[in-house]
Amino acid sequence: MTSTNSNQIKYLGQEEAINIDKELFNEYGFSVDQLMELAGLSCAQAIYSFYPKGKVLVIVGPGNNGGDGIVAARHLQLFGFSPEILYPKPSKSDLMERLVKQTTLMNIPYLKSLPTNLDEFSLIVDAMFGFSFKPPIRDPFNDIIKTLQSHQKTLPVFSIDIPSGWHVEDGPPAASSSNDTPSIQPDSLISLTAPKLCAKHFQGRAHFLGGRFVPELLAKKYSLNLPEYPESNGFLRLQ
Amino acid sequence: MTSTNSNQIKYLGQEEAINIDKELFNEYGFSVDQLMELAGLSCAQAIYSFYPKGKVLVIVGPGNNGGDGIVAARHLQLFGFSPEILYPKPSKSDLMERLVKQTTLMNIPYLKSLPTNLDEFSLIVDAMFGFSFKPPIRDPFNDIIKTLQSHQKTLPVFSIDIPSGWHVEDGPPAASSSNDTPSIQPDSLISLTAPKLCAKHFQGRAHFLGGRFVPELLAKKYSLNLPEYPESNGFLRLQ
Repeated sequence: MTSTNSNQIKYLGQEEAINIDKELFNEYGFSVDQLMELAGLSCAQAIYSFYPKGKVLVIVGPGNNGGDGIVAARHLQLFGFSPEILYPKPSKSDLMERLVKQTTLMNIPYLKSLPTNLDEFSLIVDAMFGFSFKPPIRDPFNDIIKTLQSHQKTLPVFSIDIPSGWHVEDGPPAASSSNDTPSIQPDSLISLTAPKLCAKHFQGRAHFLGGRFVPELLAKKYSLNLPEYPESNGFLRLQ
Repeated sequence: MTSTNSNQIKYLGQEEAINIDKELFNEYGFSVDQLMELAGLSCAQAIYSFYPKGKVLVIVGPGNNGGDGIVAARHLQLFGFSPEILYPKPSKSDLMERLVKQTTLMNIPYLKSLPTNLDEFSLIVDAMFGFSFKPPIRDPFNDIIKTLQSHQKTLPVFSIDIPSGWHVEDGPPAASSSNDTPSIQPDSLISLTAPKLCAKHFQGRAHFLGGRFVPELLAKKYSLNLPEYPESNGFLRLQ
């Protein structure tokens, strides 16, 4: 496999994505700490490759997608960006609390709510919901996504794994659905491990793949048909 | 700071290195899983940048330096190298056992002893002892280092953090010491977090710095005067 043609790569359904994740932890003995560090790092590196340095708002959900976002924020700061974090529903998990501690002590500001001066940011990192998400979106994320939607022509969104508000398999809410189901069309998307089915509906500028840690046997078992990552990079561009 | 002149960077004594490590875990809330993943990845990336792909023997000690080595082996395999691991004194720590599980399931061979066909390998990764090491070296590491010493003109050694057998501050055993204290002069060295004092005695071809995770406040507190890492890279070359 040498091509990075995204037509060849497999797009995962939700159950398959959940099973691969479980297998990485239960069979292969990876810890969430390990894989989240690699996933979040690949997000930060993809952002570095595509966006100029600036003020970045990382919006963090309560689960592992949010954890990827906090790890990305930490690396972005080391890369010279100025990340700030909005984390409205803090989790009590030990890992999430440690991620908050690390970033707080690195002087990354935690905001209490979506700032009114949103245009001061050059990029939004959407780390709200990942591949375990099932609708409906609850507040305050519903309101946050509505606001991002109304700014998305001027303020690009980089989504981690799943554009928040999208169905993991079906993609954005149907045009016919009510206004109560907001969603965004991100400027860029990074799929972690392998793309999920919803990524077929992605219409932004750049689609990345990150999370270079999938053992070959696991990739074969699920016929992931992953493209080859270039050199020693932790991410690649699918489209 | 834009220079990577290694004269400006601080070389740490053993106690200071231990204190910085403790502070990363106890004050900043990092887990060993997180930092070992970043450290081992930076080792693999430095190796990728400097050596052609080939068969690599990673010699692993029982502590965290060994863990960095196993993580590096895992990433080297993903980068297209063919790593094999010699791990003569397995630790019972949960993390080390999981690292072995991950690499075993990725079909990285574990050797029972130093192979007689050592010249089939193109590189040795020395992950035996790190900055907590205090002499004497015990068997089987004593014998292993002696053998590496006798091959070092043809078989390059990449040492992680401390060239094994060296005193963390004073460097290689004095020429006047007996033959019972073997040591190697590695072809390349990667210092993690910051170089230790022994690195001043390094006479190989390339000295790398890795472990790009030190919070700015911590770097200031210990006056590490770290050079700027290039772009979004996890390592840089000091010399």
